[in-house]
Amino acid sequence: MPARILDGQALAARIQQQEIKPQVADFTAAHGRPPGLAIVLVGNDPASEVYVGHKLKAGQAIGFRVDLERLPATSSLSEVLALVERLNQSDVHDGILVQSPLPKAMGAGAASRVFDTVAIEKDVDGFAPASVGLMVQGRPAFVACTPAGVMELLAREHVTLAGRRAVVIGRSDIVGKPVAMLLLQRDATVTVCHSKTPNLAEVCREADILVAAVGRPGLVTKDFVKPGATVIDVGINTITDAAAASRLYPDGHKRLLKFQERGSMLVGDVHPEVAEVAGALTPVPGGIGPLTITMLMLNTLKAARARAGR
Amino acid sequence: MPARILDGQALAARIQQQEIKPQVADFTAAHGRPPGLAIVLVGNDPASEVYVGHKLKAGQAIGFRVDLERLPATSSLSEVLALVERLNQSDVHDGILVQSPLPKAMGAGAASRVFDTVAIEKDVDGFAPASVGLMVQGRPAFVACTPAGVMELLAREHVTLAGRRAVVIGRSDIVGKPVAMLLLQRDATVTVCHSKTPNLAEVCREADILVAAVGRPGLVTKDFVKPGATVIDVGINTITDAAAASRLYPDGHKRLLKFQERGSMLVGDVHPEVAEVAGALTPVPGGIGPLTITMLMLNTLKAARARAGR
Repeated sequence: MPARILDGQALAARIQQQEIKPQVADFTAAHGRPPGLAIVLVGNDPASEVYVGHKLKAGQAIGFRVDLERLPATSSLSEVLALVERLNQSDVHDGILVQSPLPKAMGAGAASRVFDTVAIEKDVDGFAPASVGLMVQGRPAFVACTPAGVMELLAREHVTLAGRRAVVIGRSDIVGKPVAMLLLQRDATVTVCHSKTPNLAEVCREADILVAAVGRPGLVTKDFVKPGATVIDVGINTITDAAAASRLYPDGHKRLLKFQERGSMLVGDVHPEVAEVAGALTPVPGGIGPLTITMLMLNTLKAARARAGR
Repeated sequence: MPARILDGQALAARIQQQEIKPQVADFTAAHGRPPGLAIVLVGNDPASEVYVGHKLKAGQAIGFRVDLERLPATSSLSEVLALVERLNQSDVHDGILVQSPLPKAMGAGAASRVFDTVAIEKDVDGFAPASVGLMVQGRPAFVACTPAGVMELLAREHVTLAGRRAVVIGRSDIVGKPVAMLLLQRDATVTVCHSKTPNLAEVCREADILVAAVGRPGLVTKDFVKPGATVIDVGINTITDAAAASRLYPDGHKRLLKFQERGSMLVGDVHPEVAEVAGALTPVPGGIGPLTITMLMLNTLKAARARAGR
């Protein structure tokens, strides 16, 4: 029996339209202004332009004020910090999101400096150290949007976590570590694997819930997956290599045909063959991605309410 | 072959005397004052009195200024917060430690409120959310003293972590979660178990490095331990029950005889029989405990240097 496909796109649309949108209308009526999100985009990285476009469109569609604050790629770190400081003071902005990556020329520590500067009560991306610490301690906090999206999907799909084994592949600050902490809070026994884990497939086969967040196209093959496991694919990889594409899809598959037409394709970290053994699986695209944006909207609404309540 | 006993007491004494003490003397000569630690003790909890006594003695023995700031058990939360605020402003105190637990009458959220109030640059206990977040992100931070002590012992004993499986039993904010994050940073594949983990012994047997931090006397028996594994016992449990004592030690064992004389005994989470299978094992007492105090001293010295460098 092939895996049940966990349709994140549909779930995200439902939450945004049926749950968040009416609450945004209520907030706007009560406070005379909509919840406000400021998105800082430095430079013109094409992938960032796409992501920012999605966030802008999704926010506006459910009644948020979303302002895109652009800075040229040649900006100095202090110009970015000054913009963030100004947004910290802004009355109409409840959430601030700085799109990463920042231009390389800004230096290695720039992103941390910028994220650390976002006021904790507007940190809807959940990247500030204090936000991370509160999340780890299980206290009220803005949780980073991708891990929050993973947890939301698991909850809405009624995937049992308590007492189950969860394995997370990847230990990034943005996904791997926070997902591990959140699964732990939901009483899963959690293992974190990474590039230095020998016998990766063997460790992953212990998982009732397997979360892949490494950014390696098709890394997770059938032999990584215990039959019936729930597999969450957080990877979003653009591939342009024909050999890589045909390692993922058989000749004549509609996605491969489309790839041959376009020259590129968006794929996850999970090989499509996993659908033959997993109990449930998130697709890429249309899985965790749309939920990430939904969680950004929920965080911004939460920030707006907290600020309005002061 | 019985397990090698990892003598934390001797290691702690060596680090304090041979490494920290000369650095404290240098600091004092350079800045005209010793590194200063303020310990806040609210009430007279007997165990807290013992712990605080150890910290006071250890600090003074290596040349720190250590001030014990006592408040009565009947103090209000705002009195404790006011004391912490005053210590935040103090020029002579580089580190602030608030001994937990606070009196129950202060309410459930009191400890968090107090820890959150400690200035981040004086947070030598590493309990503030921003300290925790920085640690999780692998950035320079004060790391909580017990997890830091575990990592120091593993490093000094040359226990290989990269590519090995580590299992942590316990998911407390003070030990389990931070130890898991630190082991992950050292490239171990890390699993966190807890009270909701079924087949606990089976999961623990996967470990090359097993860290027990749950506070249950003798929980970890031989069947939890892969032959040759390194076992770190973070539990510090006082037992007064004769049946419990004789589950741990055979008739006539010197520790049991001492227990019968005194009526109480300090034991870890690891059953003494584990010495028959483990490759290396920390004793209780005399294992991680002394290193915890050593890490407090190191954090305070680090805080003093950072403040003096401003």
